[in-house]
Amino acid sequence: MHDSKEFLESYKLRIENSLKEILFVNTPNRLQEAMSYSVLGGGKRLRPCLTYIASEIGPKKVPPKTVDNVAASVELIHCYSLIHDDLPAMDDDSLRRGNPTCHKVFGEDIAILAGDALQTLSCSIIMEEKKLEDHEKVAIIKVITRACGWNGMVEGQLIDISNDHSLDEKELDQMHIKKTGELIKASLITGSLISGLNSEQIKLISNFGEKIGLAFQIIDDLLDVDKDSKSGKERNSDLRNGRITYPSLLGVEKSRKKALALRQEAKEILSNLNTRVEKLSLVADFVVERNS
Amino acid sequence: MHDSKEFLESYKLRIENSLKEILFVNTPNRLQEAMSYSVLGGGKRLRPCLTYIASEIGPKKVPPKTVDNVAASVELIHCYSLIHDDLPAMDDDSLRRGNPTCHKVFGEDIAILAGDALQTLSCSIIMEEKKLEDHEKVAIIKVITRACGWNGMVEGQLIDISNDHSLDEKELDQMHIKKTGELIKASLITGSLISGLNSEQIKLISNFGEKIGLAFQIIDDLLDVDKDSKSGKERNSDLRNGRITYPSLLGVEKSRKKALALRQEAKEILSNLNTRVEKLSLVADFVVERNS
Repeated sequence: MHDSKEFLESYKLRIENSLKEILFVNTPNRLQEAMSYSVLGGGKRLRPCLTYIASEIGPKKVPPKTVDNVAASVELIHCYSLIHDDLPAMDDDSLRRGNPTCHKVFGEDIAILAGDALQTLSCSIIMEEKKLEDHEKVAIIKVITRACGWNGMVEGQLIDISNDHSLDEKELDQMHIKKTGELIKASLITGSLISGLNSEQIKLISNFGEKIGLAFQIIDDLLDVDKDSKSGKERNSDLRNGRITYPSLLGVEKSRKKALALRQEAKEILSNLNTRVEKLSLVADFVVERNS
Repeated sequence: MHDSKEFLESYKLRIENSLKEILFVNTPNRLQEAMSYSVLGGGKRLRPCLTYIASEIGPKKVPPKTVDNVAASVELIHCYSLIHDDLPAMDDDSLRRGNPTCHKVFGEDIAILAGDALQTLSCSIIMEEKKLEDHEKVAIIKVITRACGWNGMVEGQLIDISNDHSLDEKELDQMHIKKTGELIKASLITGSLISGLNSEQIKLISNFGEKIGLAFQIIDDLLDVDKDSKSGKERNSDLRNGRITYPSLLGVEKSRKKALALRQEAKEILSNLNTRVEKLSLVADFVVERNS
């Protein structure tokens, strides 16, 4: 296996089908249309891919069918957060992945409700999953709620909306570790739990997730510098909002170096994991080498 | 016991303390302040009271300590929904229980995040509760997520924001059953589950909840007709928004009769329950006889 393209594509296909199934409603109302519009409108699906990969590296042999709803759950959390982040009161973005944002198509009110309902759905598909034991369900939702609540993703978003040019590098790291990193870590930890990794290994996986999560964000910022609205996001929407990004704080070169250093640290963590880490290592490459 | 005042007050005191404890943070950030502001700003606490009451009527003797987080969980869901309902893009209310609404004090962005984080918290306090078994946690969160997701409370809110003078009585009932009733039912069902009621009894409790939930809403509409902003809500805010209410659709007298009939039906359901229903019966009285 020389690069991650093939296996990431196959997980992506799997999660797309799974999300379609979860969101399928015979005659959808406007709320359900808005949920599907936002969830099924593309994206790299990095988080669910990480869940699938982590579910393969432990001692337990777990069929991917068992993992589907767990992978979908983290992706639904991600999608709900994007819908709410895009709202006029937050980032006020009108494009997401090249398409009009949820509130542009369905109105702000329905966009708020769609995000709310997706958060609920992300939890309910774990609870209703017959292929998981109760103790697994509880462990998984513990991980996800710790990652996305007032001490996790939402706190990161709070720091972001207060991001007023006064953040230093450490604070910027901290914001992204909360805003993006926590859910990326949770994607890995939930998969690891199902596959039976021990707590020492899960700690390492979590550290690995923090490194690649931060690298992912730096690359995102770098890609944003050149991107125009055709490729999915408004030109320099972060700069327009007057917020600090890695390139605006450190410059392009130093930002790229930081991402590469994080990849290196991530790979060093993997070497202590004592399990099959090839795919995770390739994902670390993908995260810093991607063009979009 | 001649009326519900005494025991409702004692549950209310209990849940207030419990909510304070759950939301306590040594040096709260703006998000945590917003969450506390909205959750601890008063309210009847009907839903958690119902959870406590239901937890007492089954064969299992359950100490209230075991119920605290379950009762708090349904109240946090209620609070998150109020914060989001009050937003400018939704009902655009500037007062709630006599105080400025969350977004008026903290801004729309933080109000959106506070609602999001409260939904997460409502789930996480169940998952982290050591006094519940895993199978109880799963059963409880199943009930709550079914009640508050895209086929429950949020769907009710969708119907409400589309409420355009074309709803008939049956549709208005349906909207309120979803928007308010589902969570009231869930409050009762979660308590009943912990106390070991059988599935037949839980069905009856759920029907009882639907009746008093609807009666509760009708009385709310009736109280709104006379209320002015001093008592907590802007004068006729529903009429101002051009929405159908029970008095606007049926008139005051017929609305009151409908509420009384629902109480009667609720009490008939209780008579088939074969357990101690006195408190529930008094709650049905409270729901239609209250002045605020």
